[in-house]
Amino acid sequence: MCRPLSARCAESRMNHRHGYNARMSRIQALYHLTADSASIEGRAQALAAEQSIEMPPAAVTNAYVRNEVIATIEGIQPLDTHRFAVMLGIATVTTGMEAGQLMNMLFGNCSLQDDVTLVDVSFPDDFVAAFPGPRFGLAGIRERVGAHGRALTMTALKPQGLGADALASLCGTFARAGLDIIKDDHGIANQHYAPFAARVQACQRALREANALTGGRSVYAPSISGGPRQIAEQLKIVREEGVGMVLLCPMLLGVGSLVEMATENLGVALLAHPAMAGAARIAPPLLLGRLFRLFGADATVFPNYGGRFSYSPETCLALADAARLPWHGLRPIAPVPAGGMSVARVPEMLSVYGEDTILLIGGALLSAGAELYERSCDFVNAVAATAQSGGGV
Amino acid sequence: MCRPLSARCAESRMNHRHGYNARMSRIQALYHLTADSASIEGRAQALAAEQSIEMPPAAVTNAYVRNEVIATIEGIQPLDTHRFAVMLGIATVTTGMEAGQLMNMLFGNCSLQDDVTLVDVSFPDDFVAAFPGPRFGLAGIRERVGAHGRALTMTALKPQGLGADALASLCGTFARAGLDIIKDDHGIANQHYAPFAARVQACQRALREANALTGGRSVYAPSISGGPRQIAEQLKIVREEGVGMVLLCPMLLGVGSLVEMATENLGVALLAHPAMAGAARIAPPLLLGRLFRLFGADATVFPNYGGRFSYSPETCLALADAARLPWHGLRPIAPVPAGGMSVARVPEMLSVYGEDTILLIGGALLSAGAELYERSCDFVNAVAATAQSGGGV
Repeated sequence: MCRPLSARCAESRMNHRHGYNARMSRIQALYHLTADSASIEGRAQALAAEQSIEMPPAAVTNAYVRNEVIATIEGIQPLDTHRFAVMLGIATVTTGMEAGQLMNMLFGNCSLQDDVTLVDVSFPDDFVAAFPGPRFGLAGIRERVGAHGRALTMTALKPQGLGADALASLCGTFARAGLDIIKDDHGIANQHYAPFAARVQACQRALREANALTGGRSVYAPSISGGPRQIAEQLKIVREEGVGMVLLCPMLLGVGSLVEMATENLGVALLAHPAMAGAARIAPPLLLGRLFRLFGADATVFPNYGGRFSYSPETCLALADAARLPWHGLRPIAPVPAGGMSVARVPEMLSVYGEDTILLIGGALLSAGAELYERSCDFVNAVAATAQSGGGV
Repeated sequence: MCRPLSARCAESRMNHRHGYNARMSRIQALYHLTADSASIEGRAQALAAEQSIEMPPAAVTNAYVRNEVIATIEGIQPLDTHRFAVMLGIATVTTGMEAGQLMNMLFGNCSLQDDVTLVDVSFPDDFVAAFPGPRFGLAGIRERVGAHGRALTMTALKPQGLGADALASLCGTFARAGLDIIKDDHGIANQHYAPFAARVQACQRALREANALTGGRSVYAPSISGGPRQIAEQLKIVREEGVGMVLLCPMLLGVGSLVEMATENLGVALLAHPAMAGAARIAPPLLLGRLFRLFGADATVFPNYGGRFSYSPETCLALADAARLPWHGLRPIAPVPAGGMSVARVPEMLSVYGEDTILLIGGALLSAGAELYERSCDFVNAVAATAQSGGGV
């Protein structure tokens, strides 16, 4: 699942049966399909129709649609006796250059078909240029928090149910300990016990006081939620309060919201959270790495291996590659492995991910109780020590 | 998966181990978990923490959070040797009464865990009252198109790639044949070959001319796409052009967009499409039936059994029940079975779903080529004939 796309594309091109339609710019979308050798050709043709014109191709009379708009089959390869890799060529014009419509063309209807997974995509350069991509990227986040030559540290304000003042107190403690980024837990939205406006004001105040004390440049990343109107109201508060970063769940808000936030260039870094993203049968490196980067995320949270979630080490590394490796000239973004991490695992995680990473430890810090400040300092120092010893990649 | 929730809740209540916390209004959320009998208790506790406070409960010191905010385990029942039904009580306050945040609390993080599916939910009345629910519902759609005592008919403008004039010509033909609702294909967005504004103007003009000719009241439902700003622009055009209904994909736009459209009471019926919804491990009757109804959809498209998709007849009927049966006083909405349907199947579908249904036939009409008008009339007449013969439920 996690081999580089370039290798896959090369394989596919060598093996293609239907020819590449050079007349129109196409997205190459790689699917895995459950089928047998007798049925795969027909199944691939059905998928190509489903993900483009959604009607029988024989009934299409318009020449432009027949020649340009219908998805092409660019390659079929057996994976084993009951699974095949199928590369479709999806015309870029069918996306209208919109993120939601891109998701729709890649996986909208076939999400309803159990025999299909979306494994990888390859975009033409001019298609990528139509999307904002990350405004900050990892380098911009480094600048903002003043962290160079080492990994970055992040924690989460939780649990939800605490009031704005209690969350702000936690925020201040974390900032005094020198954490780079202090984000809302993704379950913190606009609940009555800590409404967005009051929470952001209180946390930003605590952050400013702590930064003044330490000379540090920690940032607070509140969680954005709701429909378009509420999102706009929250972003207004974000600007007024001088917030440095925000957290959002693209699969809950809609990927179009992420694109508009990046396009409007709000001056805040965008931290994407994978809530509701994992259930989709879309390869995590593609969705959380490549596509969220294309849509404008500057950092992407994902479940690290060995925690509470089920991603393999291979999936996690492929995801980090998708976030950071050169790709169409878009800024590298920060992989943020998370989910049941601990200070004890810092050296291991840095040896795996290297310093161009944001380490997120939440619950394990909060479990320190009265020693929250000390445990937070341990985290900061563990990362700093690894940098000083020349650890990481 | 599709037994009524009430029966499940009753079972669960009889079997519950941890007691219902009556102090705070709770959502009962039913999950299926893969586990063995030795591990299920711990797995259920982990799920309860994941879907509420997202940190170790032992580290929570705040009494309000411990007593009220942490999700409760209200019942655990074996399904077979390796699967269990687990009912969680999720505090309604944690949702902030927002649709996206509700999805987050129900399935945000555990979407990333392969051993969990979300099967059903039960809401307190006062929670439901915080959401708009359907503004039109099936009855309102019937009023709008003037169709009583029979099922409604719907078709789709396709394929994408046609220009606005070609789509408008199809729209006029369908309206002259007496189709009640003519929607954009869900793959039609804001592409250059038929931009939203030009398309809606052309299709509405063709519709008005056809309605004037026949004395009918057909409506055209354009597809809404994009981020918040584009959605707002498109809805402005919808109002200006007097459009009667719109199509939207809540899992692409964000469920918060659906809620805001329903809340703003735009005077247009809202037709929900399941794109990107099927891949989630959430039972289709729950997501496409109950939740989309709660969020304000007036009709819900879903893949009918025996077509191109994999839903069973039982799933489809449970989905229709979730859309139409009495539920917290919300208006019944229209189930719209679709996906590879044909005129020949009209009597069968009406015998299964009854007359409180919208039948959607798209590609099979367009395959008629030069006889598009006649095939469309056949569809309209087949539905009318079933009504006259007393068919349906």
